[in-house]
Amino acid sequence: MTIAAGAQASRRSGHTDPDAHALTLGPLTGSAKQYEQHGELRVPVRRVHLTNGENVDLYDASGPYTEDNPAIDLRRGLPKLRDQWSRPGGPFRTQLEHARAGVLTPEMRFIAVREGVAPELVLREVAAGRAVIPANRNHPEVEPMVIGKAFRVKINANIGNSAVTSSVAEEVEKMVWATRWGADNIMDLSTGNDIHETREWILRNSPVPVGTVPIYQALEKANGDPVKLTWELYRETVLEQCEQGVDYMTVHAGVLLRHVPLTAKRVTGIVSRGGSIMAAWCLAHHQESFLYTHFAELCEILRDYDVTFSLGDGLRPGSIADANDEAQFAELRTLGELTKIAKSHGVQVMIEGPGHVPMHKIVENVRLEEELCEEAPFYTLGPLATDIAPAYDHITSAIGAAIIAQAGTAMLCYVTPKEHLGLPNRDDVKAGVIAYKIAAHAADLAKGHPKAQERDDALSKARFEFRWHDQFALSLDPDTAMAYHDETLPAEPAKKAHFCSMCGPKFCSMRISADIREQAAAHEALIAEGFEQKSREFAEAGAQVYLPISPV
Amino acid sequence: MTIAAGAQASRRSGHTDPDAHALTLGPLTGSAKQYEQHGELRVPVRRVHLTNGENVDLYDASGPYTEDNPAIDLRRGLPKLRDQWSRPGGPFRTQLEHARAGVLTPEMRFIAVREGVAPELVLREVAAGRAVIPANRNHPEVEPMVIGKAFRVKINANIGNSAVTSSVAEEVEKMVWATRWGADNIMDLSTGNDIHETREWILRNSPVPVGTVPIYQALEKANGDPVKLTWELYRETVLEQCEQGVDYMTVHAGVLLRHVPLTAKRVTGIVSRGGSIMAAWCLAHHQESFLYTHFAELCEILRDYDVTFSLGDGLRPGSIADANDEAQFAELRTLGELTKIAKSHGVQVMIEGPGHVPMHKIVENVRLEEELCEEAPFYTLGPLATDIAPAYDHITSAIGAAIIAQAGTAMLCYVTPKEHLGLPNRDDVKAGVIAYKIAAHAADLAKGHPKAQERDDALSKARFEFRWHDQFALSLDPDTAMAYHDETLPAEPAKKAHFCSMCGPKFCSMRISADIREQAAAHEALIAEGFEQKSREFAEAGAQVYLPISPV
Repeated sequence: MTIAAGAQASRRSGHTDPDAHALTLGPLTGSAKQYEQHGELRVPVRRVHLTNGENVDLYDASGPYTEDNPAIDLRRGLPKLRDQWSRPGGPFRTQLEHARAGVLTPEMRFIAVREGVAPELVLREVAAGRAVIPANRNHPEVEPMVIGKAFRVKINANIGNSAVTSSVAEEVEKMVWATRWGADNIMDLSTGNDIHETREWILRNSPVPVGTVPIYQALEKANGDPVKLTWELYRETVLEQCEQGVDYMTVHAGVLLRHVPLTAKRVTGIVSRGGSIMAAWCLAHHQESFLYTHFAELCEILRDYDVTFSLGDGLRPGSIADANDEAQFAELRTLGELTKIAKSHGVQVMIEGPGHVPMHKIVENVRLEEELCEEAPFYTLGPLATDIAPAYDHITSAIGAAIIAQAGTAMLCYVTPKEHLGLPNRDDVKAGVIAYKIAAHAADLAKGHPKAQERDDALSKARFEFRWHDQFALSLDPDTAMAYHDETLPAEPAKKAHFCSMCGPKFCSMRISADIREQAAAHEALIAEGFEQKSREFAEAGAQVYLPISPV
Repeated sequence: MTIAAGAQASRRSGHTDPDAHALTLGPLTGSAKQYEQHGELRVPVRRVHLTNGENVDLYDASGPYTEDNPAIDLRRGLPKLRDQWSRPGGPFRTQLEHARAGVLTPEMRFIAVREGVAPELVLREVAAGRAVIPANRNHPEVEPMVIGKAFRVKINANIGNSAVTSSVAEEVEKMVWATRWGADNIMDLSTGNDIHETREWILRNSPVPVGTVPIYQALEKANGDPVKLTWELYRETVLEQCEQGVDYMTVHAGVLLRHVPLTAKRVTGIVSRGGSIMAAWCLAHHQESFLYTHFAELCEILRDYDVTFSLGDGLRPGSIADANDEAQFAELRTLGELTKIAKSHGVQVMIEGPGHVPMHKIVENVRLEEELCEEAPFYTLGPLATDIAPAYDHITSAIGAAIIAQAGTAMLCYVTPKEHLGLPNRDDVKAGVIAYKIAAHAADLAKGHPKAQERDDALSKARFEFRWHDQFALSLDPDTAMAYHDETLPAEPAKKAHFCSMCGPKFCSMRISADIREQAAAHEALIAEGFEQKSREFAEAGAQVYLPISPV
């Protein structure tokens, strides 16, 4: 289906025609979208112009939507940039096959610029299967990105309608909104009507890779009855989605008949939708999962489009009690087998992970995944470090996500405050994305990613020097940071004041500290000798630690 | 000052008389306050009555305010319960001195019931200095609690006015509000006018220990000029606060003259208010800190009231760049010396910690603190795992807090979303407390605290069995959990429905899972043999994985 056809379908089915003015457009406060030209590649960055004349360039996954006055035409879709890049001749190859052959693709070179690393590192990690580049040959609009532990930790945001609420136009804006705040990927988990059409709108307008769980649509085709699912129905669905341009697909091929009884004594049984569908199918037919028995055929299909497997953890734990149990690890062993098969077909693979895991059991998950699955990129949902905080599971899971990412997880699937309770709205999506940017960045810092600490240092320096606007601009959410500041001190001069509302002018440690440093800078030699001279000067100057400042 | 005098002072100074109806009273949704009588001790618990007839009892620090129809008289204050307990005769001793002598105090027995441990464990940990019981002899209203790594991880909420906003009546409600959501302690950090009176209101009405930073009030007495501070002014302030009943005091006695130059090259210098005040004093006078030179005398004062030292980290890092640097650890070594001196005077001690620390440098803080300070309870502010998320620092710091608590930190000082930006309001205080309850509980789980997982399991069981009201009641914030659920499915029958809005009825993995378990339970023997019979039965029953359910 082309975009034009999609638009017509949309009108025919009575949807409001989504329009660019329904989208959140324009740069983040204090930043400007820039493109760095590298040969034929035009690589986006978010540039923060500081008031002290410096610039800080940040990784940017938000696409053209954050340009100044972007020209967006939802019906036309984004420019098909990958179609314009020169490629090696010969038969079609996947990124994995190119990497193994030692051939740098435009995607690898694009990624190297974004990540600030050598292209050879990208090639080496992809060739080893330690990194994947989800980029369907039929998704030319995507700005290529890499998922692997040698690179920045990535985050995924789930969007999608359901049987209860949501509309197509809302879904496109959700994608724009999620990537605005930093989502590196999105998954379209729609389960209601118009799955195909929703996906078409999202794909043609998405600058980030799009993932799906094809079993959801296959189940729709089986009228919602998992027992009626067949390999043929599933295969047809996967082909349809490959053709559309889906970049990676969650496939719960590790849920085997013999695994199902292992879940019977769990506190929360099977919590993955795909996992429970396949478990129901296996039980009803008393047969091995068709996803497992037809896995090689599935590999051939995905290979032809360079669609990446995201091997689903259908038996992931849904509670602290069920973490790291036999059901979970039995499935992981099967995913290890499947990883080898997929790679032998030239297909890229990542592995999905839990779920709900207490902190002391988190690292074991990464260790086992790496051992069993040849270090294929790990892609985890949280994990939630406790079950007791529904309505705050973006926080319970950001704790687990930061720890598991530090241990080597390459991509984190976000969790919103509505997890377990309801459908996320716009604010929830933003809250989930921000919490996960925090977790991912904390892990980048802990792993010593070369560019990560630059941003912390620039922000802290701005904070120390009372450059409030710079502090806001460098933060994950400039608007909220500024709004919080302005709640107590709304006047513009307060943003130049050398104190804030927490301590008031008299108690400001930052100001005292700045005084100490100024004196120290002027008397470096004296510092080495002692403080007598400094002390005298300080007293002579009236010992003015708190300079008088006019109230704001 | 007595409460009556405090109340008069309040009226005289023109404050609105705070009234019980200005407070948030009554039990949390789905819970009831219960007291367990143990001899003369009446120990509070939050009892959750589940719809399946079971009860779950939770640790409860919220005082009488969460009783059904509590009789609160702010002018009279809470009952002076500790005055009524029988005590060993003889001269006054601190909890530490009693423990060393092998004498169980009523406070230790009260705590043992709350924590679900043997009283001897409390005695042993206090005797070793690995735990403290902050309970000033002049704060008889306090329900005793313990801070130590062998026990539940505790959290502290800071409240207090400042030069810019806030009133006395608001401060008392803030205390009630913070303890309602789970704060185990509060610190009154007021710096504006009426410090003494605000504190009196809070102390007489606080069921939790109250901490202060006496240097703030001493600075007020010195007209805001740190250079004019003297030991005599400070001593007088400490005595005044000891008399009032303050339970623990932050003392920045580890900021030595020779440490100050170590901060000159930092990105964010000195960020502790108390630390910067003392640094300014040392520089101006070119003398060693009077807190350090008079430390033994200070010990004698605190000992007479059994006030606990919270040895402040005046040189804590204020940014990722400054974490674990020489300034920070030089001060920590000095705190180690002071710990020994305090304990030799029979005074209880805890040690304050950072601040801003990237994840990979967190555990080192605990290891060093334990080595240098004889495992005195560690009491940390976060730490924030990154600097880049102002407006979300309750999350950046909950990540660090969970990790540092898992490593052995005994109490976590909360951080609100307004950190670095403005004064926290009511919502911010709640957000900070909940984020820290999550961090503390995640650590309790990871440390294998015997009672911690009970709550997770009960909640997850309720979730799996679609007992929505039980799930809400067991959560940290029942009101918000229910509100989020009701946003999508507001009708009461939806709270009995066997699905929720995320997947809708057709896709509910929990339901499939429940079906699997029901069958598994009925055919345990068959599971061992295989699934053929099961499969036949399943098919014969119409393979109804999704039972028809009426729409809600």
